[in-house]
Parts: sequence; C-alpha cells; structure tokens
Amino acid sequence: MPKAKYDDIYRDLKERIEQEEYVYQSLLPSENELAARYDCSRNTVRRAIAQLASDGYVQSMHGRGVRTIYQPVEQAAFTVGGIESFKESVARNHRVASTEVLEFRHVIADAKLAARTGFEEGAALTYILRLRLLDGEPLILDHNYFRSDIAKGLTEDIARASVYDYLEGELGIVITTSKRTMTVEKVTAQDRRYLDLKGYNCLAVITGQTYDDHGVQFEWTQSRHRPDYFRFQDVATRTRPGV
Amino acid sequence: MPKAKYDDIYRDLKERIEQEEYVYQSLLPSENELAARYDCSRNTVRRAIAQLASDGYVQSMHGRGVRTIYQPVEQAAFTVGGIESFKESVARNHRVASTEVLEFRHVIADAKLAARTGFEEGAALTYILRLRLLDGEPLILDHNYFRSDIAKGLTEDIARASVYDYLEGELGIVITTSKRTMTVEKVTAQDRRYLDLKGYNCLAVITGQTYDDHGVQFEWTQSRHRPDYFRFQDVATRTRPGV
Repeated sequence: MPKAKYDDIYRDLKERIEQEEYVYQSLLPSENELAARYDCSRNTVRRAIAQLASDGYVQSMHGRGVRTIYQPVEQAAFTVGGIESFKESVARNHRVASTEVLEFRHVIADAKLAARTGFEEGAALTYILRLRLLDGEPLILDHNYFRSDIAKGLTEDIARASVYDYLEGELGIVITTSKRTMTVEKVTAQDRRYLDLKGYNCLAVITGQTYDDHGVQFEWTQSRHRPDYFRFQDVATRTRPGV
Repeated sequence: MPKAKYDDIYRDLKERIEQEEYVYQSLLPSENELAARYDCSRNTVRRAIAQLASDGYVQSMHGRGVRTIYQPVEQAAFTVGGIESFKESVARNHRVASTEVLEFRHVIADAKLAARTGFEEGAALTYILRLRLLDGEPLILDHNYFRSDIAKGLTEDIARASVYDYLEGELGIVITTSKRTMTVEKVTAQDRRYLDLKGYNCLAVITGQTYDDHGVQFEWTQSRHRPDYFRFQDVATRTRPGV
C-alpha cells in the first residue's frame, strides 16, 4: 500500500522536525538517503516531502535539497488551520473539550438568510448554535446552517458529539473544500452572554462555506472566538502579480 | 507560448465568474466546449481551471464537470490573501494608498530578537516601521526586519515605494513561501499613537516569515491592522485526520 508508506514517512519526518532533530533552516537528508532509510522509492519520498511543504514544514529547492522552515509555536494556543472539526483540533492540541448545544432547529432560508449564507432562498436548513469549552472555559460560539437534504438526520446528540464524524462516517459525505474569511468584529450581546471576554471588546470571527465533492455547498458556519485563544495559521506561495 | 495562453483563459474565466455570467453553484461549460471556444488543448483548459480552483473560484468534480463556488464580497474591504505587497493589494482593491516611513535603522539581532523573529543571533538586519494609509486614513502599522545580507541596499525611499518591487525587480530575489499567523491582540500605546482605532481595544495582527527560493528566511514582518478594514481569506482542502 503506497499510500500508507508515504503517510508513515510523512509522519516520521514531521515528528523529527517538530522535535528539532532537523532544526529550523537546516537541510534534510537527500532523497537517496531518505529512500534508503525508509526502504522505498524516491517518488514515495517526494510525496511525503510535498505534504510537509504544504504544511509549511519544509521548502524544496528543485534539485538542490529540502530546507526546514518549521518553528515550534511558543505559546499553547488553539490553532485553526486546514478543514478540521473542533473535536479534531482539540485532540491535536491535547486539550479537554466539551460542547453545549444552545439551539437546534429547522428553518427555511428567507431572502436575507440566503444572501448571507449562499444557500438558495427556500432551502430547508438545520440551524445549530453551540458553545465550545476548552478545559471548562467557554471560548467559541459556533453558528452552523446545514442543508437538511444533504446533512440528513442531524440530531442534538450528533451536534454535541461531532457533526463531521456523522457526515463522513454515517452519511459518507466527502467534505472537500472550505472557503473562510477571518474578520475582527465588535462583540454582541449574545457573545457577552456566553463568553467571558476578559476585557476585549471584539472577537476573532471565522465565517465559512463548505462544499462536498460535487462542489455543492452543504454548510455555512460562523465561529466567534475569544481573542486570547485564537490563532490562525497560513502558508502561502507567491503568485507574481499580472501585468 | 502555452503559459500566456493558459493565463489568458484563466483571466477570462475569472472575470466571467466575477461578473456572475456563471453564477454561484452553476456548472462551467465542458472542457471540450472551452477548448473549442479558446482554440486550445484540453490540458491548457485544465491548467486554467486548476488555478481557478486554488483561488477558491471553482471546484472540479473529477470527470463530472466544474462547479463555481465564487461569491462576490458584499462590502469593500481590504482583503489579505496570498503573498501580496501592500501596494499590490491596494491596486487590486482600487484604493489610493500612501506610506509613511516612521523608523529606518540597522540592527544586530540579540538573543531576544532572534527568538522572536527566527533569524540567527548576531544577524545584521534592517528594521523598518511604516504606517500604511488608505484613502488618507491610517490603517496599518507595519514592522519589518529584513536580513541585510540578502535584502541589500534598502533605503527609506525604497521603503516608501515598495520593498518587494526592489527585492524582485532590482535584486532578482525569488520570493517563494510565506508563513503567517493571524491573532487578535490588545492595542499598545504605539498602536494608539498612529492609528485611529474607532473604539476597538484590539487589532488584527498578522505575523509572518518569508523565504526565498533557497528556503532561506529573509524577512520577518508584523502588520497591525485596524479591525474594521481587515479581512483575511483562505481556501482549504480537507485532509482526513489520521488514525
């Protein structure tokens, strides 16, 4: 199974980089050395390296080696990146999380909601409002609208556990693309009711749309984060501006 | 020139999608139809589509067509995305920008600065503090450290115009990867001195490191943005969490 092999190498190299066996700005061993070490083809090594590059761990220099660009994050923060559910983020950050479902109801998108979310007017949606707690502290207020004909059979219990586990595991939905916008917004009365804002008068807000493998939008979400626990990471490669 | 051809098609399709000739969630014409329309190969069409997908404009459904997932942004905002200089962002947003250079000096990285920025202790750096104004309003406070042995010959005039134009155009540096972290931070006395904060007590902060095509870090930057003008966009594709 080449997929498993490449994934093993990717994980092993990632761990070595995180543990600073290969320190920031140093070169990794050559493709040939890695292929010998892991007893695999150079193509398999390249695939693992490509994944590390897209994670922002290394940068390839086209035939001149691979340099690490990873630095450990100094403070324990709740990091947002990739399309990850709250539960997955928490596990990765070794925190204890809980979720309170504050609202759960079925709605029909009116013109205003349709314009805001990107769903068609008249679409049947499931609205969920959840409070996310980390180590007992309320940190995130999550608003979700799911298209009810795709995300079928959602319940409060599923919302309390993990909607993504259910969509992928039970319904077999392939979650493919997420478009997100990060803004900083003044707090609302609702934010204040549920979050202890520690003197901040604004929040980090991520608003996003999620698409399945048919390119169909099945989710609109807005997560309102207490600022001191919020960190959003991004790796970009430069596109030269056009003439 | 296949590069120019693919780029023309990419731009043309992008414009049609932005003008909602192809509305949100509709299908693009087939590869064959597009190849006939643009008088090019299907490979060239695919390359243009791949670029649109990485911009978050469309999603391919592997043999079953291409669906648009683009929606126009309703409010005029200063959007951050990709590795773009301030000047380029402004041009793309059709705004009038100006820059004030507040500080310009040469420093040697001590242990604390090295830990903060990722440069080696003892590295010779050029520090620049700039205020960015949009349509006359001070919106962003930009702190930059450049490695002086790579970003050679920087001057205040260059800092006032565009450092990236100089690095790429004059020095021939290939700016390749940028790693960025977005946080929300309480305002400092320095922020208050230069920015009119409209009652917000925090700022949107982007902290980043930029690498050339040798994978060497040549820049550390921190941009402190007035919240109401800040918007950060991101397109993510889902990686299934490991076992």
